[in-house]
Amino acid sequence: MPLSSCRMSWVRLAAARWVAMACILALASGILAGPGGAAERDPLPSWNDGAAKAAIIAFVARVTTEGGADFVPTDQRIATFDNDGTLWAEQPGYVQAAFLMDRLKDMAPQHPEWRTEQPYKAALEGDQKAVAAGGMRAIDSLVMATHAGMTSEEFAEAVRSWITTARHPRFDRPYTDLAYQPMIELVTYLKDQRFKVYIVSGGGVEFMRPWTEAIYGIPPEQVVGSSIKLRYELTGDSPALRRLPEIDFIDDGPGKPVGIAKAIGRRPIFAAGNSDGDLQMLQWTTLAPGPRFALLVHHTDAEREWAYDRNSAVGKLDKALDEAPGRGWLVVNMKADWKTVFPFQR
Amino acid sequence: MPLSSCRMSWVRLAAARWVAMACILALASGILAGPGGAAERDPLPSWNDGAAKAAIIAFVARVTTEGGADFVPTDQRIATFDNDGTLWAEQPGYVQAAFLMDRLKDMAPQHPEWRTEQPYKAALEGDQKAVAAGGMRAIDSLVMATHAGMTSEEFAEAVRSWITTARHPRFDRPYTDLAYQPMIELVTYLKDQRFKVYIVSGGGVEFMRPWTEAIYGIPPEQVVGSSIKLRYELTGDSPALRRLPEIDFIDDGPGKPVGIAKAIGRRPIFAAGNSDGDLQMLQWTTLAPGPRFALLVHHTDAEREWAYDRNSAVGKLDKALDEAPGRGWLVVNMKADWKTVFPFQR
Repeated sequence: MPLSSCRMSWVRLAAARWVAMACILALASGILAGPGGAAERDPLPSWNDGAAKAAIIAFVARVTTEGGADFVPTDQRIATFDNDGTLWAEQPGYVQAAFLMDRLKDMAPQHPEWRTEQPYKAALEGDQKAVAAGGMRAIDSLVMATHAGMTSEEFAEAVRSWITTARHPRFDRPYTDLAYQPMIELVTYLKDQRFKVYIVSGGGVEFMRPWTEAIYGIPPEQVVGSSIKLRYELTGDSPALRRLPEIDFIDDGPGKPVGIAKAIGRRPIFAAGNSDGDLQMLQWTTLAPGPRFALLVHHTDAEREWAYDRNSAVGKLDKALDEAPGRGWLVVNMKADWKTVFPFQR
Repeated sequence: MPLSSCRMSWVRLAAARWVAMACILALASGILAGPGGAAERDPLPSWNDGAAKAAIIAFVARVTTEGGADFVPTDQRIATFDNDGTLWAEQPGYVQAAFLMDRLKDMAPQHPEWRTEQPYKAALEGDQKAVAAGGMRAIDSLVMATHAGMTSEEFAEAVRSWITTARHPRFDRPYTDLAYQPMIELVTYLKDQRFKVYIVSGGGVEFMRPWTEAIYGIPPEQVVGSSIKLRYELTGDSPALRRLPEIDFIDDGPGKPVGIAKAIGRRPIFAAGNSDGDLQMLQWTTLAPGPRFALLVHHTDAEREWAYDRNSAVGKLDKALDEAPGRGWLVVNMKADWKTVFPFQR
């Protein structure tokens, strides 16, 4: 036994004693009820008591109860969460689109040609119809102009700088304030129950990684997303990864199970989404043997957030909503099931 | 505080007490020396005492000593290991090439056309020169014939089945017996010191994932490798990922820093390789601020393993060997630095 273990053990002993003492005091003062008692700390305080919350807690209990028929070893407790519309708000448009527009405006003075060239001209004038008329090629040009050319580190720095200063048009707060409190609690609950929680998003992986740990507690290596190609460059003694103007991978729809296979190599047992872009991830997660769980966040709260589903331009929820009942997926009714939507509304 | 924490705390208290008691007994009986004493358990018993072993241990101590100038928080302790020639033997040829050949022979009865078609005919007849004459296109055809078409799960099953039955031509043992004992100890040591250890290999990611956890203790989600494209398919209620005959990503040479960025999104502080295919990974790891460490396994032991470097067809170590002294990379002399090479030689 190394001496360092001994040193550590004294610390552990002291800590364990302290916790035990606190437990005795807590029990004595009646703060805690008996086993399974209602007074246990609620892991999902921002969820209203009801079928949705009960279903989540029942599933987690089922797979984490040692000796139970549905016990799942910790290394197989993989959970995957969509980001836009599932972990944070995606209205009136994807946050990454706002980042793109702000970058385009910032870069415009260095690109006088954008004053006449499409789709830049239309985008800078806010003419969404003209941009849309250019189709995917126009979108692609705007993405590459704003997301490629620099190194990965420069891009991460641009994201960090933007995300701390940009403000959401409706709530006039940083975009990261629009993470859903109930979903942060769900991520935390699963982590506490030794799930490994991943983001699996159609958004850019290098757009998300600079801030997901601070906002959701999900580290960069557990973020899966869309990507553009990278090229390794060594200049003198300075290596860098250059972001090239070429799509590498689109982590959306049928791309999500592929992204999961590429990055994780295990099949999730828990998945959360909110749109048809999550349909295949939910199928991939649930259509397999063993205990499995999937949920869809249904945006039903126009007052505190937004109400949209089948006809929405952003976050369209149609096929997945049709499949949910037959597949046993939980449809979370934001208005009814969430006590709080955003942390600042508490 | 939830009651479950209290229940856990009693267990922890009991465990901590037991460890503390063991420490008292150990100290009393003189098994342990004082702080930093020589009697601490050796984390690398299969490494000979010498500069290589000392350099590794000194680096790990430096980055894990709390309050030290070079302390690195646990979440940033990323270590990346090449596989072929670094974690297990790659001679007389890559293990995956042996798998390919065995699959080709197994599949040949269902492909009578291979009796006349190249490069299959040459490969089946063991005519390596004729295969080589076909260049990368010939290799590509052989890879796709044996590695694509099936689902990811079917492929994993084929790998699992092969790896448990195939035997290395020289040692007449399963290939997995040819993992290097000193490197397994190094991976374990780093994990114990709360490094997150990844494989970053030119080999196929889905070829490695079925067995890396059992052999090295590295789980599938910490394996980065080359890949072919996957397609999501839903047949009735059965989803699957189909392996397509198209290269997705080559995780070798300048591809390794790219693979690291894609899969991990953090820069390693420790890297291990053995060939020029690892050159850029070692540059990417070490040419950055803060404490960093890289090593090259130099195959110098023709008796217990193999001796090769600059002119080897497999695992060529040339440019990286030239760069090592200037970059401060440790060159591990297998013959001199390793007490044991393979576990079965102990």
